[in-house]
Amino acid sequence: MAETVPHKLRSDAQDNRDRILAAARSLYAEHGLEVTMRQVARRAGVGPATLYRRFPARQVLLEAVFADELRACRSIVAEGSADPDPWRGLTSVVERISVLNVGNQGFVDAFMGEYPRADAFTEHRTEMLTMLGGLARRAQASGQLRADFVLDDLVLVLLAGRGLAATPSARTVVAARRFAALAVEAFRASGANEPLPRPASLAGHLARTGEGLRVGGR
Amino acid sequence: MAETVPHKLRSDAQDNRDRILAAARSLYAEHGLEVTMRQVARRAGVGPATLYRRFPARQVLLEAVFADELRACRSIVAEGSADPDPWRGLTSVVERISVLNVGNQGFVDAFMGEYPRADAFTEHRTEMLTMLGGLARRAQASGQLRADFVLDDLVLVLLAGRGLAATPSARTVVAARRFAALAVEAFRASGANEPLPRPASLAGHLARTGEGLRVGGR
Repeated sequence: MAETVPHKLRSDAQDNRDRILAAARSLYAEHGLEVTMRQVARRAGVGPATLYRRFPARQVLLEAVFADELRACRSIVAEGSADPDPWRGLTSVVERISVLNVGNQGFVDAFMGEYPRADAFTEHRTEMLTMLGGLARRAQASGQLRADFVLDDLVLVLLAGRGLAATPSARTVVAARRFAALAVEAFRASGANEPLPRPASLAGHLARTGEGLRVGGR
Repeated sequence: MAETVPHKLRSDAQDNRDRILAAARSLYAEHGLEVTMRQVARRAGVGPATLYRRFPARQVLLEAVFADELRACRSIVAEGSADPDPWRGLTSVVERISVLNVGNQGFVDAFMGEYPRADAFTEHRTEMLTMLGGLARRAQASGQLRADFVLDDLVLVLLAGRGLAATPSARTVVAARRFAALAVEAFRASGANEPLPRPASLAGHLARTGEGLRVGGR
C-alpha cells in the first residue's frame, strides 16, 4: 500500500503526457502546425501549467510528437549512408523517405521548418543533409549520380513529395513509389543527360550552415 | 441624360461582379476552396441574392475566378500539342505548366478537383488530358519519350509541383524550373532507363473517362 500513491502519481503523469501528445498530434493533423499551446491544453483537457511542466516550449512538444517519424527518417539516412554502394544507398533514401513522408504531412512541414517558430529540427536537418551530401559526393565519384546533381535537387524532390499527400489515399503509397523511381531516373548519370537549369538553393536555407553541403561541380 | 441610368446600372452590376470575384479570389487564397458562398457574399459586401444572380452555383464562380489561369493552361497544352516535334511539345508543357502552377495553388487545387464539390473543371481536365495523351503517344512513337511512361506520370509531376509552392517565394520559380527539368530527364527515353514500379492510376480519376488516355505499352 505504501507504494500505491507514488505509482498512481507516476501513472497520472504518464496519462497526462500521452493525452497531450495525442491531442497535439490530432490538432497538427487537422489544422497544421500553427496550433497554439493553449489549444493543445484545451484539447488534452489539462491546464496550461501541466502542459508547460511537461513541454516547456512548443519546440519540445513538436519534437516529442514527431519522435517516431524523426527516428525513422534518421535511420533511413544512416542506413543509406552506410551502404557500400553509394548509388544504391542514395536511391534507397529517395524511395524510403518518399514513402514515409507521403503519410506524414505534419512531420514533413515541421521537419522542413516551414513555420518560423517550428524550428525544432534545425540540428537534425543539418546532420542529415550533411550525411546525404557525403553520400551524394560518393555516388558522383563512382559515376552513377549525374555530375550536375546538387543536394537542393534532393530537397526539391522531398518537398514535391508533399504534393502527393492529396492523391486519393488508396493510391498515395503507389504514387510515392512511382514518383521516387522517376526521381532516381532523373538523378542517374547517363550519356543522355541534358544540362539542367540553375538549382534552387534550398539546402543551405534548411541547414544551420551551408558548409559541407556542397555537391556537384558548380 | 437618357442613357445615364442604364449605363449606371450596367456599371453597378460590373462593380458587383468585380467585387465578388476579388472577394472569392482572396478567400480561396487564404482558406482554400472550402469557402462557402455565404462567406464570399459577406466579404464582397453584397447580398446572397445578388451573388446567386451573378453566379448561380459554386462551380460557376470557381470557373470565373480561375478563368485567366484556365486560359493560360489551355493554351500551353494546345501549343505543346501543335508542336511538330512531340518531345519538344511535351517538355514545353511540363516546364510551362510547372512554372504557372507554382504561383497558383488555389487554381491547381480547383483544377485537380481535390474537393468533391469543386468539380467545375472535369470537362477541361478531360479535354486537356486527352490532348496530352495524344502528344505523349506521338513522343513515344518518335522514340524520345520512354516506353513505360504513362499519363499518370505527368499528373504525378503536376501534383508534386504543388509541394514546391511552400519554398521561399523568391525561389519558387527557380525551383519549379529545376524540378520540371528533372522531370523531363526522368521521362526521356535512353539506354540507361531502368524499369519503373507500377503507375499510380490518377489520370482516369481526373478525367470523365479513362478512354483515350492510355499511353505506354502496358
